[in-house]
Amino acid sequence: MGKIIESVINFSEGRDTDKIEQVINEIRNTEGVKLLDYSYDADHNRCVVTFIGEPGPVGEGAYRLTAKAMELIDMEKHQGGHPRMGATDVIPFVPIFNTTMEDCIELAKEVGEKIGSQLEIPVFLYGNAASRPENANLANVRRGEFEGLKEKIGTPEKKPDFGPNKIHPSAGAVAVGARKPLVAYNVNLHTADLKIAKNIADAVREKKGGLKNVKAIGLKLEDRNQVQVSMNLVDCEATPIHRVMELIKAEADRYGVTIAESELIGLSPQKYLIEAACHYLQLNDFDPGQIIENHLLTGEGEE
Amino acid sequence: MGKIIESVINFSEGRDTDKIEQVINEIRNTEGVKLLDYSYDADHNRCVVTFIGEPGPVGEGAYRLTAKAMELIDMEKHQGGHPRMGATDVIPFVPIFNTTMEDCIELAKEVGEKIGSQLEIPVFLYGNAASRPENANLANVRRGEFEGLKEKIGTPEKKPDFGPNKIHPSAGAVAVGARKPLVAYNVNLHTADLKIAKNIADAVREKKGGLKNVKAIGLKLEDRNQVQVSMNLVDCEATPIHRVMELIKAEADRYGVTIAESELIGLSPQKYLIEAACHYLQLNDFDPGQIIENHLLTGEGEE
Repeated sequence: MGKIIESVINFSEGRDTDKIEQVINEIRNTEGVKLLDYSYDADHNRCVVTFIGEPGPVGEGAYRLTAKAMELIDMEKHQGGHPRMGATDVIPFVPIFNTTMEDCIELAKEVGEKIGSQLEIPVFLYGNAASRPENANLANVRRGEFEGLKEKIGTPEKKPDFGPNKIHPSAGAVAVGARKPLVAYNVNLHTADLKIAKNIADAVREKKGGLKNVKAIGLKLEDRNQVQVSMNLVDCEATPIHRVMELIKAEADRYGVTIAESELIGLSPQKYLIEAACHYLQLNDFDPGQIIENHLLTGEGEE
Repeated sequence: MGKIIESVINFSEGRDTDKIEQVINEIRNTEGVKLLDYSYDADHNRCVVTFIGEPGPVGEGAYRLTAKAMELIDMEKHQGGHPRMGATDVIPFVPIFNTTMEDCIELAKEVGEKIGSQLEIPVFLYGNAASRPENANLANVRRGEFEGLKEKIGTPEKKPDFGPNKIHPSAGAVAVGARKPLVAYNVNLHTADLKIAKNIADAVREKKGGLKNVKAIGLKLEDRNQVQVSMNLVDCEATPIHRVMELIKAEADRYGVTIAESELIGLSPQKYLIEAACHYLQLNDFDPGQIIENHLLTGEGEE
């Protein structure tokens, strides 16, 4: 079974569809990667593209995309509602299958080094790949944006990890890093009482003393006459989906409210759902190789 | 996402490892299929080989294996403890991912027709691909084995679906069909009382009035001082794993006994475990496309 990594690259073009397609084509034309999704927004003037594959091809795709965005996007002329510092703004690598965070950190360093030396764009490592603790948080890396970074870059607190010690005149700078997958998970309750959803959200969210790695708010679903605990789960390995679900169930009990259903929004790695199955079925000795299809998630020629 | 089919072919050689390897090599050398497992047994004088891939390559692998087994195995000289009627004895096609039983039936007919016409081996369709109700049961198709079939083949009740109306002198006849995946699932109980495991096995097994598609026995696990309900689940779509688990839990309650853990032996399609996750998490609107890795389960060039 091969290692599978996801990348969710943000680049600074959300208006010129011809340019957007040219940049995305670099992913389409990279052998061994699969384009999963892309979306862009004129207000943010930004595009987000998601693709997966084994580490080598994913790194190659990320590099090619960065080279093409550098060619087409001029940050001196760029305006948009989202904080940004480069033509290619953020390149995260995310472990999906048979991969560790270390694999993603290694890939971030490889790709960062190549972008720095070949394209002469300054690169900041962020997230789990950060070389300085403050750079774990992307917002810190991007503070000041393109315009502010032009002045500050090269000072001790803004020294790039790779590439020149100055801003690239048109492509700016790029954050390359590693992070865990994000899961958007919602639980709908058999009540129309928004207060209950808000109380439960407060009970389960990290910020209010609940479960670590859980961000939660209470919402009203007008068309269903129900309320929802709407969540982002930022580390489902440490804080698995079933534990979040069971805690919500226990808190809802207090109000005599039952769970109507739950929703997973967008994508998830397989392992997070398999983990839930193993928990409830008490399958304590399960191996991913027991899933038939996983044997097809592999590089060429391996057996 | 591509269609993925599994085949679990049984061929009549379990002693001559050189011949076994030559037959298995036909699968290794078929592009687009992945060999998952093979095992053989001298007493049965029989080998079981499991491989997966998209329908075209899996059919091609099954045909090539059959041609090679015909070349190397002479049924006139074959002896073994397992009922058999041909050099290649049974070829089932099993829907695994993004595939229907109809796809597998179609493939069985295609491959059966090719084996019949090109190799001149008589072919009986069985299982869900059977053209006559009595042939749904493989034991009926194989009754009389190679020696008996030599006489009876061609009579109205033993008319092959494809190929000549007589036995192949060295390769015999082959059953080609379609069936659901089999799952071997065991539940271990926090008691050493074998009677309880036997009672629960009787409660859940189809034969005794329990759940359809469940075969179950009670066993003692001497080394653990526990007992086990050991099961074969023959249709986890109709009778999902979680329903079996919950019924066992409910029956065990009667004796004040809890579940120690469960085990899945060998392989399962992904969907059966995802179904369990969806059940317990109440994910009623889940789509397999939400699993990131599933986008890599695809033919070349598809997007």
